[in-house]
Amino acid sequence: MALPSDSVGLVTPETARFDSITLQSGARLGEFELVYETYGALNGARSNAVLICHALSGNHHAAGYHTERDKRPGWWDVCIGPGKPIDTNRFFVVSLNNLGGCDGSTGPRSTDAATGEPYGPTFPTVTVKDWVLAQTMLADELGINAFAAVVGGSLGGMQAMQWAIDFPERIRHALLIACASKLSAQNIAFNEIARQAILTDPDFRGGHYVKAGVNPNRGLMLARMLGHVTYLSDDSMGNKFGRELKSGDIGSGHGVEFQVESYLHHQGQVFARTFDANTYLLMTRALDYFDPARDYGDDLVRALSGARCRFLVVSFSTDWRFAPERSEEIVDALVAAGKDVVSARIEATQGHDSFLLNVPRYLNVLSTYLRGVAEECGQG
Amino acid sequence: MALPSDSVGLVTPETARFDSITLQSGARLGEFELVYETYGALNGARSNAVLICHALSGNHHAAGYHTERDKRPGWWDVCIGPGKPIDTNRFFVVSLNNLGGCDGSTGPRSTDAATGEPYGPTFPTVTVKDWVLAQTMLADELGINAFAAVVGGSLGGMQAMQWAIDFPERIRHALLIACASKLSAQNIAFNEIARQAILTDPDFRGGHYVKAGVNPNRGLMLARMLGHVTYLSDDSMGNKFGRELKSGDIGSGHGVEFQVESYLHHQGQVFARTFDANTYLLMTRALDYFDPARDYGDDLVRALSGARCRFLVVSFSTDWRFAPERSEEIVDALVAAGKDVVSARIEATQGHDSFLLNVPRYLNVLSTYLRGVAEECGQG
Repeated sequence: MALPSDSVGLVTPETARFDSITLQSGARLGEFELVYETYGALNGARSNAVLICHALSGNHHAAGYHTERDKRPGWWDVCIGPGKPIDTNRFFVVSLNNLGGCDGSTGPRSTDAATGEPYGPTFPTVTVKDWVLAQTMLADELGINAFAAVVGGSLGGMQAMQWAIDFPERIRHALLIACASKLSAQNIAFNEIARQAILTDPDFRGGHYVKAGVNPNRGLMLARMLGHVTYLSDDSMGNKFGRELKSGDIGSGHGVEFQVESYLHHQGQVFARTFDANTYLLMTRALDYFDPARDYGDDLVRALSGARCRFLVVSFSTDWRFAPERSEEIVDALVAAGKDVVSARIEATQGHDSFLLNVPRYLNVLSTYLRGVAEECGQG
Repeated sequence: MALPSDSVGLVTPETARFDSITLQSGARLGEFELVYETYGALNGARSNAVLICHALSGNHHAAGYHTERDKRPGWWDVCIGPGKPIDTNRFFVVSLNNLGGCDGSTGPRSTDAATGEPYGPTFPTVTVKDWVLAQTMLADELGINAFAAVVGGSLGGMQAMQWAIDFPERIRHALLIACASKLSAQNIAFNEIARQAILTDPDFRGGHYVKAGVNPNRGLMLARMLGHVTYLSDDSMGNKFGRELKSGDIGSGHGVEFQVESYLHHQGQVFARTFDANTYLLMTRALDYFDPARDYGDDLVRALSGARCRFLVVSFSTDWRFAPERSEEIVDALVAAGKDVVSARIEATQGHDSFLLNVPRYLNVLSTYLRGVAEECGQG
């Protein structure tokens, strides 16, 4: 197969090794690795680096192909590539698998040197702050003092926001897409149901499923099905599936009878085969805990007041998991803090998933904003 | 304890026995029972009967108390009683547990005379049409030729709609509250996740859990947690729980840490102890299948054209499970079919659950409408 001409092409993940990191909880994690990919070239001034932060089930493989036989490119290929919004002709793009992940970076499936066994449920709690700290260590390794932009959707947007707060000298633009400054009680509730599905699966074995040679497939499947429904809009599900009965008639009531069920089962089963349950628990907890205002008397304006970067905040009309109102809270706080912010509410039918999809106005907004960023770093 | 003066007081369930029923699927169910309660008195003309249809996890105990020690009255006590919207000084109110239920009517926990064992998963598929047919049999038993009104919220409202279509001569008013003419793909998806939680629980045992002496508590708990989140609005959860951490600090990430989680766990555990898993599967399937327009070329106007009753359609602003738009579809179809319809969209913060709660404007609308119904049957 010839790869598309606007693709970054074949890419190979790389691994960076670090001695240790002290986490927000106070725990210290010894030797660890981060797996990452890069697209494009770092300029002489080392000023054109863009960091991609992934969301709940994402990883480092954001663009391009690992082999010519891959059926699909990386998860954000719609945004990253030559001539695309995050233009690899202009930017040096860095995308990593976060600490605690299950796609190559050190996480619950990795071996704990202290015991010689997989960490499993003993892997320390990590937070969005921890991820950002680990990302600065990777930046050091790559010789990047400051990112031209840190970009993320959903949980990725939360990391971009934390960058602006924690490392104001090391980020010039924060692109916060389909995110929120903290989860609502409803968001937490959905996460908790997904977690309970995993925790109560008898094959979870208190998190020691790898050692036991089993996997909590049922729980992971339920978690993914639930996540998936909340990432789509009611309308987009209706357009995609309607109420079509698989067999065309009312059946016994016990099998799969609507198209939407069949689709969700498939999605859930694929996820259960590929994603680590302990990582899922860890990442949903990081989502729940994210609340940068908490350390500033619950005042988001104060939390953001030390930021020195400029901001782009994007939301989608039918996103009910992180609704446009949640983005407006961020915009309002940025304005009140006297920050430079551009915001766009994009009409899109696909709910929270819109941030991953080819929504023309969305891609135009990103392109336009990032063209300005490229000009600033001499890549115009 | 003295019972409240606006309560119907102490009530005792009664049981009606029937020889058989032929279901929509073609299956014939032999001898069966329906458990029901009545409140108020049937007038001489037998014209003041009101039927209450329950929703997913409801039952016959809609108002009053079974004993003086009961902590809570029936599930719709806010609406039913002397001087309340469904005024027992004026109406003879009938409330039953639907066929397939688990609160006394014949259902999966009942003994199948053919085998001497509980039906369990072999209990036949029942539909909203079947429930309505069974309700007419109960009406015959009680000497009620026509109901002054058939009233229901959510799945109960679907039954009231089916009454208007299937038995136009036997219903004078249909009160459709927080319902829809069919589920959306998103609704079906949520039901399917709840079903999968039950079906994949190892203690479900293919539905034969009673015989095995176990109960799929994990699956039922997850199903209820999920249902509960979708019945509430994001705002009402926010107001009720905010993001309060139980312990006040970030913990290990594996226990219950937010108030909303603790609440949902409790709700889920109570439900798992009291509700039958096979009944839950059966009732959610009845919800999924409900689509009266299906038999009329997917034309709801045609489906409703044979109705002879008048309609009240009520929706709630923050109900996202059965949004006001879904009620408007019903109203539009009724108007197009030339029917007499009154509709109200009630501002309420509590989501789908609003129909069970003391929302003053909602109760006023019901009272006003039903006062007219009472006058028609000489109970003004």
